[in-house]
Amino acid sequence: MDVEEQARPVGGFRFAGVSAGLKAVFGKEDLGLIVADRPVPAAGVFTTNRVKAAPVLLAEERLRSGRLQAVVVNSGSANCFTGKPGMKLAIDSCAAVAREISCPPELVVPCSTGVIGHRYDLEKYRAGVRTAIAALSPNGLGDFARAIMTTDTVPKLASTTIRFAGADVTIAGVAKGAGMIAPRMATMLAFIVTDADLTLAVLRRALLRALPESFNAVTIDGDMSTNDSLLMLASGLAGNRRPSAGELTGFEAAVGAVARSLARQLVFDGEGATKLVTVEVRGARSSADAVKIARQIANSPLVKTAFFGCDPNVGRIVAAAGAAGVALDPDRIELAVDTVRIAAHGMILTQALAAAAAAMRQREFTVRLDLKLGKAGATIVTSDLTLEYVRINAEYTT
Amino acid sequence: MDVEEQARPVGGFRFAGVSAGLKAVFGKEDLGLIVADRPVPAAGVFTTNRVKAAPVLLAEERLRSGRLQAVVVNSGSANCFTGKPGMKLAIDSCAAVAREISCPPELVVPCSTGVIGHRYDLEKYRAGVRTAIAALSPNGLGDFARAIMTTDTVPKLASTTIRFAGADVTIAGVAKGAGMIAPRMATMLAFIVTDADLTLAVLRRALLRALPESFNAVTIDGDMSTNDSLLMLASGLAGNRRPSAGELTGFEAAVGAVARSLARQLVFDGEGATKLVTVEVRGARSSADAVKIARQIANSPLVKTAFFGCDPNVGRIVAAAGAAGVALDPDRIELAVDTVRIAAHGMILTQALAAAAAAMRQREFTVRLDLKLGKAGATIVTSDLTLEYVRINAEYTT
Repeated sequence: MDVEEQARPVGGFRFAGVSAGLKAVFGKEDLGLIVADRPVPAAGVFTTNRVKAAPVLLAEERLRSGRLQAVVVNSGSANCFTGKPGMKLAIDSCAAVAREISCPPELVVPCSTGVIGHRYDLEKYRAGVRTAIAALSPNGLGDFARAIMTTDTVPKLASTTIRFAGADVTIAGVAKGAGMIAPRMATMLAFIVTDADLTLAVLRRALLRALPESFNAVTIDGDMSTNDSLLMLASGLAGNRRPSAGELTGFEAAVGAVARSLARQLVFDGEGATKLVTVEVRGARSSADAVKIARQIANSPLVKTAFFGCDPNVGRIVAAAGAAGVALDPDRIELAVDTVRIAAHGMILTQALAAAAAAMRQREFTVRLDLKLGKAGATIVTSDLTLEYVRINAEYTT
Repeated sequence: MDVEEQARPVGGFRFAGVSAGLKAVFGKEDLGLIVADRPVPAAGVFTTNRVKAAPVLLAEERLRSGRLQAVVVNSGSANCFTGKPGMKLAIDSCAAVAREISCPPELVVPCSTGVIGHRYDLEKYRAGVRTAIAALSPNGLGDFARAIMTTDTVPKLASTTIRFAGADVTIAGVAKGAGMIAPRMATMLAFIVTDADLTLAVLRRALLRALPESFNAVTIDGDMSTNDSLLMLASGLAGNRRPSAGELTGFEAAVGAVARSLARQLVFDGEGATKLVTVEVRGARSSADAVKIARQIANSPLVKTAFFGCDPNVGRIVAAAGAAGVALDPDRIELAVDTVRIAAHGMILTQALAAAAAAMRQREFTVRLDLKLGKAGATIVTSDLTLEYVRINAEYTT
């Protein structure tokens, strides 16, 4: 699958990203808009946090119909923990967009990201919507990606074009997020659009199938956000015929590849992160066991500071694995960094540690743990825990 | 309860702490010894980590008899993830002590703390045991406390004397630990001795009752150790008669107070910690719910960096609470720092944030979350996540 980390036009959609003055920093883009030419099939998954932002509650409700015409996203304020006034603000925000594009307000969903507990200014927002409407363009996805950034240092984009059921179909995605990332259902804000002609059921299944190995397989700090939202819309303009089962599998693989690319970009840009570390657990009795162990390793502050220090710290990794509440046999496990085996038969392979440390000095490496108990496995992508992470989060209110 | 953070002689026990050359730093104390005048009732609780150190496995086995005469503890090496040679080392270590004090080796248990995956030198250890035997003294508990330190910056001691069943009874405890602290059963190394005359059943119950609000109620980094061990021995020399139920309750309260003091000292000396924060959750439907939420808050990197930054970050705290997988109603919860209420009715009380920030600039403060759903509660004591924590753990191999 050839996935590019950049924007690509997708038939039937226009995009904009503008400054509405919602962020404290003057002139920063903070309002993004996706508008479809007509109502289109749409699916979404949202945070499982029990404290959900008003826009998440509203989007969940409106997505039940399976149809949308616009998505409006602001950064600078999460509109979460804002009570009834927050819900009114989310409804009024959608209404402002619906009025401009002459569609029912139920076909517009809002997303918000930024400081929790603060509401944005509705008048500024409405003026921003008008500016965004005027700026809408088939080539505007890059602007949209910049407008939804908070502590992100770079916009995250991914796109691919595949042959699908007799037509060329494009899938393009965008995401934001750099902290409070440990999704259980969806992560942060992410949006995928395609011109494929799909039924709602097919669209929903493609989105759910892409999740486990993309957004649900990354963690930066183990903190689950209140605003996580992943939306996917399909315009149907590509002109494909009704796909076969095999063609659908190909399409789902392409959506998965775009989602994985976005998820990896999230971790690469994780707050203060200097490394992207893939934690691969295999030889587990069940996938659930493997996921628990991989998450425990990927979220351990001691393991993550060792990653930062390029320290092949077998003890911290096996201690984290042992703390996952899953049966394992310390005498059987094998541990490696990339291809360098550093533990086996219940002992550290001391002579290999220098080579492992060298591998860890790369920007990206893989920690491989084989439990040797079964055939199941799991992969979680994580970042290191750095001085800069603490600096950012001790000084910045999110 | 009048608990002092210092050592006190306890009839029937002698203690020593010496340098055996097991630590990399020359001359540092690294071998501690507790010897009872005769075999005494003893109880222990140990880590629930699936990767258990050899000394933990051996101590668990030997504690089944409920009788001990000596405990020998080394720092500098955890003797964990050391395979069969590690278990032989633990057995030989106990044998060295048993030979010197002429008791069966089954009455000696070992504890180890330090780097995982490394074994210490048995010959140095045996020589150290001889030095320690010669140094044994009723006043040696302070030396013992220093000998078991690793990244600890201060020794942790707690003692009290109470009137119990017609006699003056002393309870003295010692603990070590500064990182990899998130016990589920016991934490780090901790030892409590008393001269009370108790049955084994009473001793075991007192130890288990002390746990939930002491060692099991603290977390520094959410990482569970492979070597956590808590042992309690009772010499019976105080001369008390058989206690009434009420007297037993008083004794258990005293053991609990000593354990809580030690647990708090662990957090105060947490790696890089600048603050001790008590997270109090109440109004929960069940204690289990309250514990889950309190732990999620106390282990959240975003919350802990906000503690470091003296930032009354309502958003991060409620987001962590919402991620605990427990039902809650954001519109009902109330949040306070000490006595300053900062959130209610689903909103932040913005005008109170300055006063809350001032409270957070203290060395110690309490975060109070009332869910307003029921009558259950829980308390977890935690530290902040600081630049120094990352520095220590990126540069030091534990």
